[in-house]
Amino acid sequence: MLDSFFKPRSVAVIGASQTPGKLGYSVVYNLKEGGYQGDIYPINPKADEILGLTVYASVLDVPGPIDLAVVVIPYQFVPGALEECGQKGVPAVVIITAGFREAGRDGVERENELIAIADRYNIRLIGPNCLGVIDTSTPLNASFATGMPPAGPIDFMSQSGALGTAVLDIALAGRIGFSKFVSLGNKADVSEIDLLEAWAEDPNSRVILMYIEGLPDGQRFIEVAREITRKKPVIAIKSGVTQSGSRAVSSHTGSLAGSEAAYQAGLRQGGVIRATTMEELFDFALAFGYQPLIKGNRVGIVTNAGGPGILATDALERAGMEIAHLGREAVDALVAYLPSAASAANPVDVLGDAKADRYKEAMRLVLADPNVDGLLVILTPQAMTEIEETATAVAEIAQGGEKPVLACFMGEARVEAGAQILREQGVPTYMFPERAAASLAAMDSYRRERERPLFSPEPCTECIPAVRELFDQVRADGRVTIGDAEAWGVLKAYGFTVPESRLATSVDEAVSIAEEIGYPVVLKIASPDILHKTDVGGVRINLRSATDVRDAFDLIVYRAEKYMPDARIWGCQVQQMVPGGREILLGMSRDPQFGPLVAFGLGGIYVEVLKDVAFRIAPFSRQEADEMIREIRSYRLLEGVRGEPPADHEAMVDALMRISRLVTDFPEIVELDINPLMVFENGNGTMAIDMRLVLAS
Amino acid sequence: MLDSFFKPRSVAVIGASQTPGKLGYSVVYNLKEGGYQGDIYPINPKADEILGLTVYASVLDVPGPIDLAVVVIPYQFVPGALEECGQKGVPAVVIITAGFREAGRDGVERENELIAIADRYNIRLIGPNCLGVIDTSTPLNASFATGMPPAGPIDFMSQSGALGTAVLDIALAGRIGFSKFVSLGNKADVSEIDLLEAWAEDPNSRVILMYIEGLPDGQRFIEVAREITRKKPVIAIKSGVTQSGSRAVSSHTGSLAGSEAAYQAGLRQGGVIRATTMEELFDFALAFGYQPLIKGNRVGIVTNAGGPGILATDALERAGMEIAHLGREAVDALVAYLPSAASAANPVDVLGDAKADRYKEAMRLVLADPNVDGLLVILTPQAMTEIEETATAVAEIAQGGEKPVLACFMGEARVEAGAQILREQGVPTYMFPERAAASLAAMDSYRRERERPLFSPEPCTECIPAVRELFDQVRADGRVTIGDAEAWGVLKAYGFTVPESRLATSVDEAVSIAEEIGYPVVLKIASPDILHKTDVGGVRINLRSATDVRDAFDLIVYRAEKYMPDARIWGCQVQQMVPGGREILLGMSRDPQFGPLVAFGLGGIYVEVLKDVAFRIAPFSRQEADEMIREIRSYRLLEGVRGEPPADHEAMVDALMRISRLVTDFPEIVELDINPLMVFENGNGTMAIDMRLVLAS
Repeated sequence: MLDSFFKPRSVAVIGASQTPGKLGYSVVYNLKEGGYQGDIYPINPKADEILGLTVYASVLDVPGPIDLAVVVIPYQFVPGALEECGQKGVPAVVIITAGFREAGRDGVERENELIAIADRYNIRLIGPNCLGVIDTSTPLNASFATGMPPAGPIDFMSQSGALGTAVLDIALAGRIGFSKFVSLGNKADVSEIDLLEAWAEDPNSRVILMYIEGLPDGQRFIEVAREITRKKPVIAIKSGVTQSGSRAVSSHTGSLAGSEAAYQAGLRQGGVIRATTMEELFDFALAFGYQPLIKGNRVGIVTNAGGPGILATDALERAGMEIAHLGREAVDALVAYLPSAASAANPVDVLGDAKADRYKEAMRLVLADPNVDGLLVILTPQAMTEIEETATAVAEIAQGGEKPVLACFMGEARVEAGAQILREQGVPTYMFPERAAASLAAMDSYRRERERPLFSPEPCTECIPAVRELFDQVRADGRVTIGDAEAWGVLKAYGFTVPESRLATSVDEAVSIAEEIGYPVVLKIASPDILHKTDVGGVRINLRSATDVRDAFDLIVYRAEKYMPDARIWGCQVQQMVPGGREILLGMSRDPQFGPLVAFGLGGIYVEVLKDVAFRIAPFSRQEADEMIREIRSYRLLEGVRGEPPADHEAMVDALMRISRLVTDFPEIVELDINPLMVFENGNGTMAIDMRLVLAS
Repeated sequence: MLDSFFKPRSVAVIGASQTPGKLGYSVVYNLKEGGYQGDIYPINPKADEILGLTVYASVLDVPGPIDLAVVVIPYQFVPGALEECGQKGVPAVVIITAGFREAGRDGVERENELIAIADRYNIRLIGPNCLGVIDTSTPLNASFATGMPPAGPIDFMSQSGALGTAVLDIALAGRIGFSKFVSLGNKADVSEIDLLEAWAEDPNSRVILMYIEGLPDGQRFIEVAREITRKKPVIAIKSGVTQSGSRAVSSHTGSLAGSEAAYQAGLRQGGVIRATTMEELFDFALAFGYQPLIKGNRVGIVTNAGGPGILATDALERAGMEIAHLGREAVDALVAYLPSAASAANPVDVLGDAKADRYKEAMRLVLADPNVDGLLVILTPQAMTEIEETATAVAEIAQGGEKPVLACFMGEARVEAGAQILREQGVPTYMFPERAAASLAAMDSYRRERERPLFSPEPCTECIPAVRELFDQVRADGRVTIGDAEAWGVLKAYGFTVPESRLATSVDEAVSIAEEIGYPVVLKIASPDILHKTDVGGVRINLRSATDVRDAFDLIVYRAEKYMPDARIWGCQVQQMVPGGREILLGMSRDPQFGPLVAFGLGGIYVEVLKDVAFRIAPFSRQEADEMIREIRSYRLLEGVRGEPPADHEAMVDALMRISRLVTDFPEIVELDINPLMVFENGNGTMAIDMRLVLAS
């Protein structure tokens, strides 16, 4: 899939130029300089030869087949060129040219025209408005970037071409190497989802990096990423997080930035590791790309100085990692080997006068300890320190092992030679210990995510018909909002328990229903036209006798008729009084990118005032539902404080799973709030008291 | 003050060596190579000449005066050498030698011996167990570090020598320059407080950096820092934050790490900017050291690419900065000047083909806008980008201005030449936009802190005598715990309102007190021996008549006598029923480093379960008390939600100020809890319901 972009047998450059400095020259130059071994066909009606290559006036004039065309002509000529590519049978086209969707309304039309042509000829497109495509193993540099990055185990896709140039410039300095690099541009056709699918199978990469501004098909992204991240780690940075940031996105590429909560949930549910800064993106990429995955969270530290060891310890613990408790064997061996002033406990301090041999033996002992899952080696350039020899020792220790080794060679002028050796030998090194610590923590977090059970959502086929019928009825009625008893119908269909409740159209009927349900009961006005019942005095609770019920019925109906003379009054709903419990809010709103964003929180001030809410995109797994509940800050209150019994956790998970199914089975549900869902103590389940649901109009 | 360390007219090196690689050689070499112009006296009984300098057997043999001695001999000979320094009249000594406090109990004794000698002769000591001292303006390199760092506007002190070597190695690569550098070692005499005081007056520095492992005299540190940070920014990184981190500290230097909450509060109250990573420490240092302070939080961004502009926007907003809304004049000028596809709104996108001239004009216009407080220039190395010319343009624009300009030249291989120009011209540049954004935010945060009103705590002289008397009484009674009515005595002395309450020793007395106070009342058992009154049924609330009071009195006393036969029973406390309000917890515990750590939180689950508490070290200012209240997550609840009136904010500030005075006036108070403090609605004040106070035994 997409192989023609990365392993083409021949490449045409439409708009090739003889003039250095022009993009059409740079692309041809890069193909040649990058060592591409296939045929290169410069296309330009006004030239004969470019960089020693024969030039053709059109792709149609090229004698052999063309696997990939790179387009760098002005935008008004692109449709014609694409048309010719179609006629020629070119399967893959990279359009570098700008002036499309990002350039306003006319641009959108121009881009749609390209899409139509590509569809007609079955051409796959990358771009327009992009930097191009690089594959270091082919090797292929079909971009106008400066220089070919070094090869390495990392695939990178960027929605911003300029950011791509910066990333490649960092790679050129030798800090990182790439397998494949794609600047996605406007994503008229090939999207990050297509690349993820293709790169999951890239034998030359161990990690995929993404710079994302928007993900138009969030649901599909989650599905695909969920699969792929089990095989290969994916690290993403998402820009446009804050309000102004989002504004900047929409003026930049016209892509709609989804709400931060939805991206947060969606990336996480896709198993994607989220970097919060560009630096983290690189830091994590080095760790994942060059070292084996960590198998636990226990880190051994070997250092020649106390201070940096403490900084590393702080950073590791802050990130949820553990400072390994070294086993007896390792400690004894370290004590025997190290000078007496050294610390044989983790962090292992080999002292300021440690030379490479002492470092090496200490690292060997720590790494061999079964209580250690990964190693962080810290070096400060002290008077006696053998920087290069120690770097070589670190590389030797790391070589072929099953535990990751990261280094922190602190400094720059003197330590650079050592850092260089480490980079060449595939041991990531960081200038400061906190960055190495964060990278180890990212690996561990990925490992845990990957261990989740597989999850395939299933519709609730037996629940659907009843709800379908109810929705049809509501729509036939010209309404889109559902509440009250109607809402209970929906909830019951999906297995929720709701208060026992029936419609009474007269006082006598109300009393007889109340006697059947059992006192105390609640009476509520029943009217499709009265949404805020309490505002018109339409609710009376804790009615304990027939007299109470009679009084309440008459009073409620009298008031409703008086204050809402135009409302249709069906009577009163007689409802079971619900026993005490904790109030939960379950909600859903539909995110434009990701679809159903489900919210969970403790009712009342916790949600409304303290904004203590957890989100996931539906459909989600039981485990995700479970995590969602534990994620709120006030979770301790659900566990039971001050002698209260714990709330029924499994029943809350069940409730979330039912909502997940309901909103997945019925994409026409635009919004939904169960408020409150009463949660009783452990074993006693939940009861949905009230729900409001809005259908797409 | 401490001038002899930094501007000595002559330096003796005690333990000077002829052997390259030895510390005693490195120090002499560094003095010479570092360009020191004063007299250098190598001291070594077994040598004649070192690096062309005449060697003396003892400082006593040196003909001229010695301002500074650097000691590098083995620890057993240090006391003798120090003794001789005293006899010679040397005012300042740096002891590099290790083997003191950090080396266990014997080491502590050895260090105490040094302190005694220094005291006797009025010698100031830096170290022992340190790297030495550097002053680039003297110039003086009295350390065994490798090489002399470039001069620059930054003073650096480090409690870790090894970390110092790393920092100097980074400086040697040209990333940062120093005015003064001190490795503090064990801080036998000169502490970070002494250096802060000295460096506040350093005309060559604009910012002070600290690497802290422990601050033994936290109270004094706050006092000194509070003054100094008004004149010069101080940036600190504190290690040993987490639990394991703290363990590592105590095994490292034997210094006691205070609780994280106390450091957090103490550094903040001292006006110190806290860096969370080493990288931040450097990033912030560059911004503060090389650029003028930002005067507001509105940042202009000029970029040649959308993506990085969004990343910067995200990072700035996350850090509480604003993306400046450019004024009409600037926007009009930008629109007129820039190509039509460019964005004249902030972030200003000068487009990928921008050359240096376009950058320069855009920067000029943005920086001239009165709506802009600082500028962030972002460059990605695109095909047409003039990296070096743009760097020069940035430097020219920044030159001599009153608004800070930071750069983010993204990349490495190609952009390094531009970054080099920026560094040379004093414009800090960062590889990624998030780091530049965080640095601008740090400047703004410092500016706001510095604008706080001055604060000098005053004892409550009129409150003291009553409390002093009460404490004496309690101690005479053989007790250290105070509660109940006694506690109210303390609270009332400091101006708290407490419930009206009197001791009744008989039923009749109880009734007559109740009639005076007015019903309803509360009765509580009065006994110095019963701490948990409710456990023995010793509290009855809401008593509404004489009968209620009689019944309650008899019942309470009967039960107390039955369940606590040994307790002294004084009778019952008859107490006013307190009207409803919100419950607050005010607490204090004494931190070993910083002293009285005062806590504020909403009572009940908010403190106990959700740990939603704000801390400050007493004494604090009204403004700090105000901030403390606003800092808790549940503050919105105090503002009034769901139609509640707001709680009396000023009264809460008053309450905090009273506690601040009380615990400052009486250092013997070890612990204190007012729980609850009832806060009534705005204008109605607070009432302290219950307090427990523990005196030092």
